[in-house]
Amino acid sequence: MDEVPGREVRHEMATLTKGTANLDLYRALARQLRADSIRSSTAAGSGHPTSSLSAADLIAVLLAGHLRYDWSRPDDPANDHLIFSKGHASPLVYALFRAAGAITDEELMTFRKRGSRLEGHPTPVLPWVDVATGSLGQGLPIAVGVALAGKRVWKAPWHVWTLTGDSELAEGSIWEGIDRAGHERLENFTAIFDVNRLGQRGPTELEWDLDTYAARVRAFGCEPIVIDGHDPAAIDDAFARARHAGRPTVVVAKTIKGKGVSFVENKEGWHGKALDAEQAKKALAEIGDASSRTFPTLKPDPWRPPAWPSPRKPELKTHTEPVATRKAYGEALAALGAARKDVVVLDGEVSNSTHAEDFKQTAPERFFEMYIAEQQMVAAAVGMQVVHLVPFASTFAAFMSRAYDFIRMAAISRANIRLSGSHAGVSIGEDGPSQMALEDLAMMRAVHGSTVLYPCDANQTLHLVALMADLKGISYLRTTREKTPILYKDADFRIGGSRIVRGGQKDDAVAVVAAGITVHEAVKAADQLRGSVPVRIIDAYSVKPIDAAALVDAVRTTGGRLCVVEDHWPEGGLGDAVLAALAEAGVAGEITGFVHLAVREMPGSAKPAEQLDAAGISATHIADAVRRLASARPAAARRG
Amino acid sequence: MDEVPGREVRHEMATLTKGTANLDLYRALARQLRADSIRSSTAAGSGHPTSSLSAADLIAVLLAGHLRYDWSRPDDPANDHLIFSKGHASPLVYALFRAAGAITDEELMTFRKRGSRLEGHPTPVLPWVDVATGSLGQGLPIAVGVALAGKRVWKAPWHVWTLTGDSELAEGSIWEGIDRAGHERLENFTAIFDVNRLGQRGPTELEWDLDTYAARVRAFGCEPIVIDGHDPAAIDDAFARARHAGRPTVVVAKTIKGKGVSFVENKEGWHGKALDAEQAKKALAEIGDASSRTFPTLKPDPWRPPAWPSPRKPELKTHTEPVATRKAYGEALAALGAARKDVVVLDGEVSNSTHAEDFKQTAPERFFEMYIAEQQMVAAAVGMQVVHLVPFASTFAAFMSRAYDFIRMAAISRANIRLSGSHAGVSIGEDGPSQMALEDLAMMRAVHGSTVLYPCDANQTLHLVALMADLKGISYLRTTREKTPILYKDADFRIGGSRIVRGGQKDDAVAVVAAGITVHEAVKAADQLRGSVPVRIIDAYSVKPIDAAALVDAVRTTGGRLCVVEDHWPEGGLGDAVLAALAEAGVAGEITGFVHLAVREMPGSAKPAEQLDAAGISATHIADAVRRLASARPAAARRG
Repeated sequence: MDEVPGREVRHEMATLTKGTANLDLYRALARQLRADSIRSSTAAGSGHPTSSLSAADLIAVLLAGHLRYDWSRPDDPANDHLIFSKGHASPLVYALFRAAGAITDEELMTFRKRGSRLEGHPTPVLPWVDVATGSLGQGLPIAVGVALAGKRVWKAPWHVWTLTGDSELAEGSIWEGIDRAGHERLENFTAIFDVNRLGQRGPTELEWDLDTYAARVRAFGCEPIVIDGHDPAAIDDAFARARHAGRPTVVVAKTIKGKGVSFVENKEGWHGKALDAEQAKKALAEIGDASSRTFPTLKPDPWRPPAWPSPRKPELKTHTEPVATRKAYGEALAALGAARKDVVVLDGEVSNSTHAEDFKQTAPERFFEMYIAEQQMVAAAVGMQVVHLVPFASTFAAFMSRAYDFIRMAAISRANIRLSGSHAGVSIGEDGPSQMALEDLAMMRAVHGSTVLYPCDANQTLHLVALMADLKGISYLRTTREKTPILYKDADFRIGGSRIVRGGQKDDAVAVVAAGITVHEAVKAADQLRGSVPVRIIDAYSVKPIDAAALVDAVRTTGGRLCVVEDHWPEGGLGDAVLAALAEAGVAGEITGFVHLAVREMPGSAKPAEQLDAAGISATHIADAVRRLASARPAAARRG
Repeated sequence: MDEVPGREVRHEMATLTKGTANLDLYRALARQLRADSIRSSTAAGSGHPTSSLSAADLIAVLLAGHLRYDWSRPDDPANDHLIFSKGHASPLVYALFRAAGAITDEELMTFRKRGSRLEGHPTPVLPWVDVATGSLGQGLPIAVGVALAGKRVWKAPWHVWTLTGDSELAEGSIWEGIDRAGHERLENFTAIFDVNRLGQRGPTELEWDLDTYAARVRAFGCEPIVIDGHDPAAIDDAFARARHAGRPTVVVAKTIKGKGVSFVENKEGWHGKALDAEQAKKALAEIGDASSRTFPTLKPDPWRPPAWPSPRKPELKTHTEPVATRKAYGEALAALGAARKDVVVLDGEVSNSTHAEDFKQTAPERFFEMYIAEQQMVAAAVGMQVVHLVPFASTFAAFMSRAYDFIRMAAISRANIRLSGSHAGVSIGEDGPSQMALEDLAMMRAVHGSTVLYPCDANQTLHLVALMADLKGISYLRTTREKTPILYKDADFRIGGSRIVRGGQKDDAVAVVAAGITVHEAVKAADQLRGSVPVRIIDAYSVKPIDAAALVDAVRTTGGRLCVVEDHWPEGGLGDAVLAALAEAGVAGEITGFVHLAVREMPGSAKPAEQLDAAGISATHIADAVRRLASARPAAARRG
């Protein structure tokens, strides 16, 4: 890499005392970080002290010499960002907060105890934690998202730092992240690889082969800086160079697990294990003077993000002709992009299919092509919401499953992200099962605090996407490949709502609960049944939360005759959601007949209409089910 | 790389006519592959002809000059393996089968039509297809698994070839695979990168930057061979070198999307689009002579896998003292390893936590350390079952979510794999939510044809793991971190079964359905309730398929009073499974009271018992729920 001009290095140094005094400060801080990591984990009786010790020197130099962060104002938009991708080094995280004066020693000692903010792995219940980590290989890709937002949207002065373990470098997601940082030339991004050679159960694959790590980093487009991770001067120099390199950097640091405590240093069998009281005493004696105090840190230069005009209400057109809901998703994004500056859109190299490309035309500077790397796509969305953007991320619904661990963790991060999966269900037709999401509703329902939406027409889609922009938590919109007819011209949609699209009278004999593509099949079935069976068709576009009141009313009106039809496997989707809602409302006992039409056999290739029919979820099958339900003796199934 | 001795190259050539005649044959075959790719996709009206054309020369040379495969005997264990990681190049796959004489021209023209084996993306409904592909970035990691089994278990002579697109090289899973191939020195593995520069919506990230691809391949431990992917002589040489390189290789081939048809060559907007009849006519004229015929191919040298002794019944001990079910999982694996040679075990660098390490002691040669790369772990398991091994793969249950797309695709591959997730639920205690699987039951229930098991004691675990060895499809075992008491001394467990652990009499007033850790809480609740409320505790250890008969009996006996308690989010787990089973059995209407105890708030850190209590799923909460249910007026919730 280019030589870093001395001037820039001095910029760092100027804020602290110069020369060896500085190194002494780093060493003192490292001692305290080590001692506090041991004290807190020993008090807890669990935790990862040895994984903390290996990175103590790296973090000491970062905290005292390079991180620009106002610890009294974690919401200062000028602050740097520091994400521990190795979240299990939480003793070190909290020791850092203690040294920065952010928490007291008393709180430090609550580590891992019930009710404490200092959880086993860091989460944003602490104001200085951007995102939850602990599932390895996620913090770095999320940090890339923060850096992307900083560079491309905010044009902010802050730098993003992320500390990884070496075990997690085996995760492909790390390389998706390094690749993205490299391709986007994120000069505001620095990863620190804490290469301590030992994983949970023994040596890592590459152990101390720093050259190979460096070669990988370089091949993926970032600049490696290889150092001894226990030499404060070398670390200091590396971080100064990293901040001013003008390109994304990775500090590849050779470290020793358990460094500083002779009897655990570089030893197997010490991962995720606290020292007992006796061992801790011995360890603290070895570490030496480490009085628990607050260290001086660097504040950021004052900076305010650009002032944006207040968000306007997006202008949504009203369709009259059949349009695919995925197309309407793109239109809604474009409208949002025009109406507010905080909306950003990410897509996994399928924006011409998901129609996220419509947004790109409106706001190209806020569109992020993530290529076929769904984990990085979701991670980047999580990173962007850290800095108050409103991300929407899309790919085929089937491929959202690639990022499920990231979505799960996003909920723990209390992240506000919006996902859209297109090409859901068998109705995609000829492409076959690999492209059909048939488990996405189950997957997304089982995310804590999630919202799951599945519109059936373009106008409904437009309004739901507009609502998503202001939703908290993880929201998911399932869209359909095929054009679908227009059912609605109004805007009467809400999270937790539903619509009655046929029937709705007191004499409805059977209720059909559908969503998305099956609403149209149900409508066709109702048309077939006209004059024979009065049927109520419920469009349950809000799959979670589901409209329990509408379901209860349907059960009571029809004498408990219910058909649920969905383009999804039988498990975990609309059928399960309906039954759970009825059971919770205490009216499961009023069900007298229940038919669940869902995809039960592995599909192959066929035209969309053929697929729906083969899966048993087409109008014909719905009409048959309704007839069976209507003709069954009332309460036939009720005994007791 | 080392020079390949001429002798070895000649070994390839000797089987065919030498010199330019050979190249002419390759060219003729490439013409046919191109023509057939266009003919079939145009007849289908959809598909990916241009993605097929870019790889036609590569596949022609492979088929006619290097692949050793008896097309009349796809089950010949001596056959090479060829996996199209770019599954969307299915027109080329089927054109290859046509050229090999495996299918007729008539069948070729059924591409993508209902009922045809020639689906939009290849699946193993065709005997020459090892696994389903179509979710990018999966075929290569699976091929690594096949090669691992070939090298380390079978010591087989066959070579594994896999063709990737360049778009999918953005997936981290590709690099997990290349890394694994490199680390395991899989000299029987060759990947072919078809670098045609264009993805679905436009240029790929690296376009034709072959040097960067080569640098990445090298840094990840494989040998790159960079060639012009349209030069038959260069391809021929590369494949000969690859087969005999003595190390894992990647042929990085510069190609042109749509090659051979001037008006689509290297053009955007032609991904996943069939030529219309007029365009196809013009294209076929350009391609020239391409009469559809069968080409000579190479058969493998005869080889039989080693004869193994018949599997014995595993010797399972009977525990009497509390043992963690994860520990019993390890013991069962070890017993299986001793009893049969076909069992292989993979783990994601946590084998000391999942206890998969117990197997390593019994059969180290059949234990595969996959490091922290869960996608590759599941992919390798899928690859190993292709060659008739019986893989078990384990990690923390929470991290199975990392591989969900691979699990979903494994079902489409009709793969038989066994997964085990440890440390499920809040009961893990202090580590906090990132390590707690609370969505795994939902995720695994929604896999087509899956079996989901959740044992509560060690003896039950031993027997269920033994049953898993002979199960078809995707099976999943959820285990618990903490030691749990022994409830069973017998072997009366079956897929689809359940056990009554308390009550079971005609006067049971309330039934509690539990599984895993909550069985023990329910037992404690029953003990608390002794003398006040007669309660039936059902251990629903088979979550899918669930024991519907036992549930129906419980509903009828108790007058419809049911409590389900699970260490999982409310969605998609045991509660949903119970309701769905009752609804399907037609007895939902007999539910008079239903309480669903599940984890509803985001947990933090706390001791296991504190976590269970805070989540509302401990004995106290169960006893309260039972009392409420018992005291409610019969049929209180039943109106109609």
